[in-house]
Amino acid sequence: MAKPAKSNAKTADPKEALEGFGKDILKEIERGEKPRFVTTARTRSNILYDNKKGYLSLGKTQEERNFLNVAQSKRFMQTVAIAAKCQKFVTENLHTSIRGLFYQLKYSLGEDVDENIFNEQAESNPLIEDLEVALDVKREEFNLNANRKGVMAGNVRIIDTFGGERQEIDASKMGRSGWAIPSDVDNDIKFVDLKAKYVLVVEKDALWQRLNEDKFWQKENCILITPGGQAARGTRRLIRKLADEGLPVYVFTDSDAWGWYIYWTIKTGSINLAYIGDSVATPEAKFLGVTLSDLDKYEFLKNMTMKGKDVDLKRAQEMLEYPWINQHEEWVAELKRAIKTGIKLEQDALQGPRLTFVSDYVREKIKNKDFLP
Amino acid sequence: MAKPAKSNAKTADPKEALEGFGKDILKEIERGEKPRFVTTARTRSNILYDNKKGYLSLGKTQEERNFLNVAQSKRFMQTVAIAAKCQKFVTENLHTSIRGLFYQLKYSLGEDVDENIFNEQAESNPLIEDLEVALDVKREEFNLNANRKGVMAGNVRIIDTFGGERQEIDASKMGRSGWAIPSDVDNDIKFVDLKAKYVLVVEKDALWQRLNEDKFWQKENCILITPGGQAARGTRRLIRKLADEGLPVYVFTDSDAWGWYIYWTIKTGSINLAYIGDSVATPEAKFLGVTLSDLDKYEFLKNMTMKGKDVDLKRAQEMLEYPWINQHEEWVAELKRAIKTGIKLEQDALQGPRLTFVSDYVREKIKNKDFLP
Repeated sequence: MAKPAKSNAKTADPKEALEGFGKDILKEIERGEKPRFVTTARTRSNILYDNKKGYLSLGKTQEERNFLNVAQSKRFMQTVAIAAKCQKFVTENLHTSIRGLFYQLKYSLGEDVDENIFNEQAESNPLIEDLEVALDVKREEFNLNANRKGVMAGNVRIIDTFGGERQEIDASKMGRSGWAIPSDVDNDIKFVDLKAKYVLVVEKDALWQRLNEDKFWQKENCILITPGGQAARGTRRLIRKLADEGLPVYVFTDSDAWGWYIYWTIKTGSINLAYIGDSVATPEAKFLGVTLSDLDKYEFLKNMTMKGKDVDLKRAQEMLEYPWINQHEEWVAELKRAIKTGIKLEQDALQGPRLTFVSDYVREKIKNKDFLP
Repeated sequence: MAKPAKSNAKTADPKEALEGFGKDILKEIERGEKPRFVTTARTRSNILYDNKKGYLSLGKTQEERNFLNVAQSKRFMQTVAIAAKCQKFVTENLHTSIRGLFYQLKYSLGEDVDENIFNEQAESNPLIEDLEVALDVKREEFNLNANRKGVMAGNVRIIDTFGGERQEIDASKMGRSGWAIPSDVDNDIKFVDLKAKYVLVVEKDALWQRLNEDKFWQKENCILITPGGQAARGTRRLIRKLADEGLPVYVFTDSDAWGWYIYWTIKTGSINLAYIGDSVATPEAKFLGVTLSDLDKYEFLKNMTMKGKDVDLKRAQEMLEYPWINQHEEWVAELKRAIKTGIKLEQDALQGPRLTFVSDYVREKIKNKDFLP
C-alpha cells in the first residue's frame, strides 16, 4: 500500500498561516466584503477511504462560514478568537492544552461580552479542528498539547529541545520505564542514531513491560512501543514517523473488538482524525497477532480463550462491511471465525506456559512473516 | 501528624515468606491437623482510621480459611496455587501482571481439574491481597506489577537495575516527557543525589507539562510529579518514599470531588489499599489548591468557575462526615462553601490571564505556606 505522499512534508508555517488568516479577513473588510472562513468539511460524508492511499482522509467538500450570517457569526467570531490565542502561544513559545486555551478565551472574552462565548469546552474543540484543516497546521504546531499516553524503548536517541534547553534521551537506557511519548513528536524533537530494524507496537503496557524485561528490543534490535490501549495522537504520529524512516511496523493486540480497533486506527487512521490522516495513519502496518488462527498453531491456547462480549461480535460483523478490511481474505476468515465461535483471545494468554513465551511467540511470527495484512 | 512507623521498614523477605507459608501447611498435614490459612480481614469493619497514624489501615480482626471446610477449600487451594506461582516468579526473577498470573494459573490448573479454577480474574485478585496481608509482602515483591501511571521530573537520579542491567536515569534531563513512574519503585530502584527541597504533586498531566515547560522544578528545586488523575500504587509509594526522605509534599488539584479524592487518597490512603496503608499513605501532605477561598484572593477567578456536578456536591457532603476531614475547620469551611455555592474550580483556570500564571500561583502559595491541612 502506498505511503502517504505528504506524511513527512512540512505543513504550513503556523505563524504565517495564522497571520495570513487574519490578513485575509482584514482585506475582506477593507474591500467591503463579508468576512468569511473556508475550511474542508469534516462531516461523515466527506470522510473517504482511498484504496491507493490506504487511509481515511477528507474529500473535497468545502464549508464556508460568514461573519454576517446570524447563524454563523458566533462560530466565526469564536474561530477568530482561537486563532488569535494560538498566534499568541506560538509567539510566546509556550504550550498549553485545549483546556488551557478554553480558559484563556473565557478570561479574555468572558467579561466584555454579554454572554460567555465559550461556556463549554465542547464548543472550542471543533473550532480548533476547523483551523487545523483550513490552515493545514496541526494543533501541536499551534502549541496545543493533546493528551499523551504510551511509552517507547529501543536503540534510538531523542534530542528534545524544550524550554530553551537541549536534552538528549537515550531510549535504550530507560530501565523498566521507557520513554514517555509526548503529545508533539515533531517540533524541536529529533530522532538520531536510529539503529532498530522494525517497530513492534504492543497494545498493553503490561505486555510491553514483559517484553522490555526480556530485553526483546535489545536482542531483536527493534523499537518497542505501547500505546497503552488506543493510541493517542502523539503515538500515532510517532509510528508514522518511524515508518517514514523505512521501518516495518508490526502491531500486536488482543484478538477482540478493542484490539482490532487499535490496529485499524494505527493502520488506516480514524474518523475523528481523518483530517490529519496523512500524518497519523500507517497503511504499511501489519497485524502480528494474537489471532484465532493461533489456536491451530499453539495447542495450549485452546484452554486460554475467553467468551467474547456482544460488542466484540457486533464489531466483527461491522468490520466485515468495511471495504478496507473485507478486501483481505485473511481478515474475513479471522472475523468470521470470531463470530462463529464467539470467543476471544488475549495477548496476556501467551504467558500461560511461561512468562518468556511472549517473546518467543513474537520472534517466531516475525521470522515466519506470519502476519495479517 | 505522625509519620507511619513502618513506612520504610523492610517487609518480610518474599521468598522466605512464601516458603514459610508452604512449610506451615506441610507441618499441619504431617501433624494430622487441618491445613489453614490465617490473614487479617480486609472487610469494611476492619478498616480503621487512626488519628495518631493519620491514615487508614487494617484492624486486628483475623480471618481463617480451612482446607477441609467445603465452603473454603476452593479458595484455600487457589491461594496456595497463587503462592506457588509467586514463588516461581521470584525464583525466576521475572515479572508479570496479575493478568499474567491469572493465565499461568489457568494454564497449570485448567486442564487437570474438573472445572477451571480461575474463570475470572476477579477470583484471583482478592486472593493476592490475602497473601500480601498474611505474609506482609507487597505484590510488587512477588514480582507482580500493578498498573502504572504518572511521571516525575526534578533534581534526582534514579538507579534502575532491571533485567540484570544497571541504568542511570537523570530525572532533570527528561525533556518534555519526564520519567515514567513504574509500578515498583522499591526493588532494584534507588534514588540518589536527591537535591530537591519539596515535592509538588499536580493532578493533571496537562498542568504538569505547563509547569515543566516553565522549568518550575528547576527554578524552585522541587520534585514535580503528576499521578495523571487518581494515583496508582507506584506513584503513591513514590510520594511516601520522598516524604520519608524528609521532603514536604504539596498536592495541587481541582477544587471538585475528584480532586479532593485524589488528595485524600494520597494523604490518608484509601479503603482498597488500607492493607498497605503504611507504605502508600502520606499523612504529612498538604493541600495547595485550588480552593474556593482562592476566589477571594484572585479576582479573575470569579469568572472562571464552573457549575459543580451533583456528584461533587454529594461527595462534599460525605466528606464532611469523615472524622479525618471534619477535624480540620479549614476543610469544613471549604466544603460548606462548595455545597452552598454549587460551583467548582479547575486548576487549568489559572492559565486564564497568562499561561505562566500557574507557576506564580504555586510559588506564592508555597511562599506564604497557604495550605489546607
